[in-house]
Amino acid sequence: METGGSAPPPPVGAIFRREVRIEWGNCDPAGIVFYPRYLELFDANTAYLFESVGLPKPTLVKTYDIVGMPIVDVQAKFFMPSTFGDRITVESRIGEWRRSGLRVDHRLLKEGKVAVEGYESRVWAGKDPEKPGGIRTKPVPQEVIDRFNSAH
Amino acid sequence: METGGSAPPPPVGAIFRREVRIEWGNCDPAGIVFYPRYLELFDANTAYLFESVGLPKPTLVKTYDIVGMPIVDVQAKFFMPSTFGDRITVESRIGEWRRSGLRVDHRLLKEGKVAVEGYESRVWAGKDPEKPGGIRTKPVPQEVIDRFNSAH
Amino acid sequence: METGGSAPPPPVGAIFRREVRIEWGNCDPAGIVFYPRYLELFDANTAYLFESVGLPKPTLVKTYDIVGMPIVDVQAKFFMPSTFGDRITVESRIGEWRRSGLRVDHRLLKEGKVAVEGYESRVWAGKDPEKPGGIRTKPVPQEVIDRFNSAH
Amino acid sequence: METGGSAPPPPVGAIFRREVRIEWGNCDPAGIVFYPRYLELFDANTAYLFESVGLPKPTLVKTYDIVGMPIVDVQAKFFMPSTFGDRITVESRIGEWRRSGLRVDHRLLKEGKVAVEGYESRVWAGKDPEKPGGIRTKPVPQEVIDRFNSAH
Repeated sequence: METGGSAPPPPVGAIFRREVRIEWGNCDPAGIVFYPRYLELFDANTAYLFESVGLPKPTLVKTYDIVGMPIVDVQAKFFMPSTFGDRITVESRIGEWRRSGLRVDHRLLKEGKVAVEGYESRVWAGKDPEKPGGIRTKPVPQEVIDRFNSAH
Repeated sequence: METGGSAPPPPVGAIFRREVRIEWGNCDPAGIVFYPRYLELFDANTAYLFESVGLPKPTLVKTYDIVGMPIVDVQAKFFMPSTFGDRITVESRIGEWRRSGLRVDHRLLKEGKVAVEGYESRVWAGKDPEKPGGIRTKPVPQEVIDRFNSAH
Repeated sequence: METGGSAPPPPVGAIFRREVRIEWGNCDPAGIVFYPRYLELFDANTAYLFESVGLPKPTLVKTYDIVGMPIVDVQAKFFMPSTFGDRITVESRIGEWRRSGLRVDHRLLKEGKVAVEGYESRVWAGKDPEKPGGIRTKPVPQEVIDRFNSAH
Repeated sequence: METGGSAPPPPVGAIFRREVRIEWGNCDPAGIVFYPRYLELFDANTAYLFESVGLPKPTLVKTYDIVGMPIVDVQAKFFMPSTFGDRITVESRIGEWRRSGLRVDHRLLKEGKVAVEGYESRVWAGKDPEKPGGIRTKPVPQEVIDRFNSAH
């Protein structure tokens, strides 16, 4: 993609990878993974990614007084089907920090090739002090961002 | 089964029935329903059964100061497979009231024949006043039981 | 929304709507729908949309010699959470016909407001005659497209 | 449990154990695992158990001309809830060989204590030569049984 003396890529921060097996119950009558199951992998990997830099969800909630990181947008592109028994690598990283949220980028790799690619946009949300039961986005603390970069 | 002049069956109380369609994502590579999906139908139908006698879960929790009806035992027997597009009747009723719990009986019918049969044993559970975060079973209030019988 | 003498909207073809209840097992510890469950609703509604114009999947497969309509891209945006017991309308229609595929647009409405919005891009795929086990996209037959427009 | 000079326990054959993490999407609004998810673990572990003795499902289907091991009966008892982030050991073994089927026993252990216990009864099923699309149970081959015992 690079054609000249381009600048080095920006620091990407922590990457979390895990291997999953495709199970019988993940697959549909066509014998391939039923696509909402891939989104379950995205969601789980976001939690594992934060945990991998020392920020498991219970810590996040307690330390930063948030209710969580509700999803606002998700996209996935499917390049190759996977079937029962396949070994898939699920690879996730922060794609972008935003003022009050973040984008998590996910890739599923099968034998080194990208089978699924997508992202989740999430907001950093605390309780709304003015509306019982409501939530309000808050800026992501710099020290949270730093965790990902120092983990690089 | 009956061999003599037996007594009439006991009053069964309310029965809740609903029709569901078997969807693509409920089925496995053999083209039939992946069996844990049937248990999802059991769980949902228990909620609908209580709702049908005027006791939706939020009412139960508020009126009777319980945390819910945690499951302690489930069994299911599978007689016929179901496939994508099938119309199934899910039929549920209280099988037995116990001191601090209940058994909910479920049947799935396909074209009038029993395809799946099973039950859930659940306890009537409130917060444990002596153990923060813990639960303690409580007697099922008579007025809850009466709701099912008057709905007969 | 319209401020001037704009042209009428293009014919949209068939719209399929169904009401679903949010069940306990669809929700997460935050008490709201776990987002991959929404994608399960998308997938099911695409099947119901085709069925509603007289093209249930078994008919599609038999009549047009396809293996199905594999998904290649999905996106969803989340505007409002839904919780246990909510009644949601899932509304789906063809967003665009493409040479060898289609985009299905989905909206989830809660009390008349859009709670979730998204689309699925799918291809019209038959068996690849040159590659056992492989698939190959094919043009969507005009009579399939016509079904949706005449159903308008 | 034994109080006298009892005979040694019968050889149990292979045991398959794996550790799973409880994920956010496995849990319900009460913050605990939604019980049908446990049955998904049972089903997956049965496949892993056979794989662990050199009999992954594709091998079984090809070598023994079966369509699979359809489930006929499942039971589970729940002793302790599990929550997001918990590490659970899922332990499975053959509980009994039957003429044309088997029982697989499953236990979920949390910090060494049994949290869930149950079994699946399955049949060994081939295609019915007299009924297209039908299945017929067949005796379990001795060499399949031997695999589990030699793995002991």
